[in-house]
Amino acid sequence: MAADPLVVSVPDPEFAEAIADLDGVDTVVWDMAGPHPRGAQVQLAVMPYMTRLRLADVAVGLDALRVVQLQSAGYEEFLPDLPVGVTLCNAAGVHDASTAELALTLTLASVREIPKFVASQASSTWEPLVLRSALADSRVLVVGYGRIGRAVTRRLAPFEVTVTAVASRAREGDNLVPHVHGIDELPGLLPSHDVVVVIVPLTDATRGLFDADTLGRMPDGALLVNVARGPVVDTDALLAECASGRLRAALDVTDPEPLPADHPLWTTPGVLITPHVGGATQAMRPRAKALVRRQVQAMLTGDAPVNAVATGGAPAV
Amino acid sequence: MAADPLVVSVPDPEFAEAIADLDGVDTVVWDMAGPHPRGAQVQLAVMPYMTRLRLADVAVGLDALRVVQLQSAGYEEFLPDLPVGVTLCNAAGVHDASTAELALTLTLASVREIPKFVASQASSTWEPLVLRSALADSRVLVVGYGRIGRAVTRRLAPFEVTVTAVASRAREGDNLVPHVHGIDELPGLLPSHDVVVVIVPLTDATRGLFDADTLGRMPDGALLVNVARGPVVDTDALLAECASGRLRAALDVTDPEPLPADHPLWTTPGVLITPHVGGATQAMRPRAKALVRRQVQAMLTGDAPVNAVATGGAPAV
Repeated sequence: MAADPLVVSVPDPEFAEAIADLDGVDTVVWDMAGPHPRGAQVQLAVMPYMTRLRLADVAVGLDALRVVQLQSAGYEEFLPDLPVGVTLCNAAGVHDASTAELALTLTLASVREIPKFVASQASSTWEPLVLRSALADSRVLVVGYGRIGRAVTRRLAPFEVTVTAVASRAREGDNLVPHVHGIDELPGLLPSHDVVVVIVPLTDATRGLFDADTLGRMPDGALLVNVARGPVVDTDALLAECASGRLRAALDVTDPEPLPADHPLWTTPGVLITPHVGGATQAMRPRAKALVRRQVQAMLTGDAPVNAVATGGAPAV
Repeated sequence: MAADPLVVSVPDPEFAEAIADLDGVDTVVWDMAGPHPRGAQVQLAVMPYMTRLRLADVAVGLDALRVVQLQSAGYEEFLPDLPVGVTLCNAAGVHDASTAELALTLTLASVREIPKFVASQASSTWEPLVLRSALADSRVLVVGYGRIGRAVTRRLAPFEVTVTAVASRAREGDNLVPHVHGIDELPGLLPSHDVVVVIVPLTDATRGLFDADTLGRMPDGALLVNVARGPVVDTDALLAECASGRLRAALDVTDPEPLPADHPLWTTPGVLITPHVGGATQAMRPRAKALVRRQVQAMLTGDAPVNAVATGGAPAV
C-alpha cells in the first residue's frame, strides 16, 4: 500500500539530491520565480536564500501547502502573508557556524592588528618588533547566549581566555560556562571585560542596548564585536568612544545598513567593518540541506515541523 | 639552618615579583646592559626578551652561574658562547598561545576576506551580499605537530573542520587527532586539504619543504599559512602559485625577512603578510614569569633544569 508521496519543492537541484534517497518523497525543483505546473500539489516549499519573494505571490495556487521552509533565521517579513494553516519554519542553526566563525575572525583580526598590517602591506612596510596585544588571557563577555552565543563560546574556549555569558535571564551554566548571567547584570559585568561579543536578537529590549551609558562602562582599550544587528548599538555613542581612542569596535552589522559612503564610522580609528557577511557563506549550504532533510523526515513520520516559528491564522509560537 | 639563598637575576621587577614569595631566593633585578655588582653570586640568570646581548659579554665575572634562562624559543645564537658547565634553557611553551592564536587569526582573516574588507573600508565601500567562503567544513592540514601544532589544532577543533596532523614521524594520535602522519606522507595528503598550517622547526630537513613540487600538490584555491620560519617555503615558488591566483597565502614569516620594500610578495594577490608577530605579544609575559618560577623551584629542589637545551662544554641534549 503506497501512500501518496510527500510533494516537496526545493529551489535548486542540490537540495533535491540531498533528499533523493528518502522513500515516499516526490521532489520538484522550483525557483519560485514564476508559477510551477505542480504547485497545487506542493506540501513543503523550500524558499530560495536571500530572496525578495513574498509569500503573497509565491503561495498563490499552492492549495496543498502545509509548511514553508526559509533559509534565513529572520522570518518577520514573511508573517503578514502566511496562509491560514501553513506553518512557517526558519533556518535557525543553519548560519550558526558561519556567524560564530566571523565573531572569532573579527575579534582576532582586531586584537592581532590585521587591519594595520593590511595597510602596512599596501605600503610595503615591515612594522618593527614590539610586544603587541593578544587575545590570550583576555576576559571575554558574550552577550546573547542562544545557539550562536554558545557556538561563539565553544570557539573561544581553547584560546586561554575567560568567557562570561549573558542571556536574557540568569540560569545555570553548561559545559562551557559555569553560570549564565541575566541581562540585568550587564552593567556590573562590563568594567571587568576586555572583549564584548554581541549576538542578541534585535527586540524592543535590545534596541540601543549598547548606548553611551553601557559603552561608558567598558574599560579603556576594550573591544566591542557586533555580529547581532546594527541597532543593538547606538552608532553615535560608539563613534564618540572610538573617535576618542578609548574603545575599539569590529562590526559585521551597522545602523544604518548598508553604511552610506559618507558615514564617519568608515574612517573612525580602531573600527573594523565587514558588510554583514556573518551568515552568508558556503558553510550554510550543507547545513541548509541537512535541515530540509530533517524537515522532510518530520513530515514523513508525522512529527511536528522542525524550527516552526508561526502558523498562519494562529499566533506566533 | 638557613642554606645560602639561590641568587637569581631577572631583567625587570615584574619577574622579581613573580618569585617574591619563594623562600630561599635572593633576587636581583639586572637588565644586563652593564656589569652587576652582585654578578659573581648569580646562579640563575634570566635574559631580557628580544635582546642582542651575547653571553660572551654577559657572563663575564658570573663565577657562580649555573643556568641561563632565555625568553625565546630559539637558542642557537647563544650556543657558541655558553660557558663550560652552564646549562642553557629556552622558553619553549612561552610563545605557544600567542603563535597558535596568530595561526588562527591568519587563517580566519584570509578565509573570511578581512584584507579585502579592510580595503573596501578604506574606500567607504559596502560590498554586495554574495555567498562567501568559510572555514567551517574545511580540511586543514597542520604540518608540524609539536607543542604549537597541538595548540593550533586545539583552537581549530571547535570550528567544524577536519584536522590532519603531520609530524616528522608517524605516531599514534591523541585527544585531538586520531593519528599523526609522518612527513613522508605529506605529498599524498596535500591534494585533499584546503588549508595548510606550517609550524615545523627550521632544520636541514624542512628548509625549502614547500617548494614548487609540494605547493603544486595543493588543490586550487587552497591556503598556505606559514607561522614557522620563512625558509621553510620557497618564496619564488609561492609567488608563482599566488600570482597565478591558484593558491593563497598568509605569512607571518618570510624569506628574506624583513621583506624588502621592493619585494613582489607585498603586492601579490591573495597574500596576507604580518611582520613576524606570532610570539611577541603580551600573552608571553605571564607565561615567561611562570616558566622562571618553575625554573627557580627546580633549582631550589635540586631537580633538573626546565627546558634545558644545552650545557656548556657538553653536546646539546
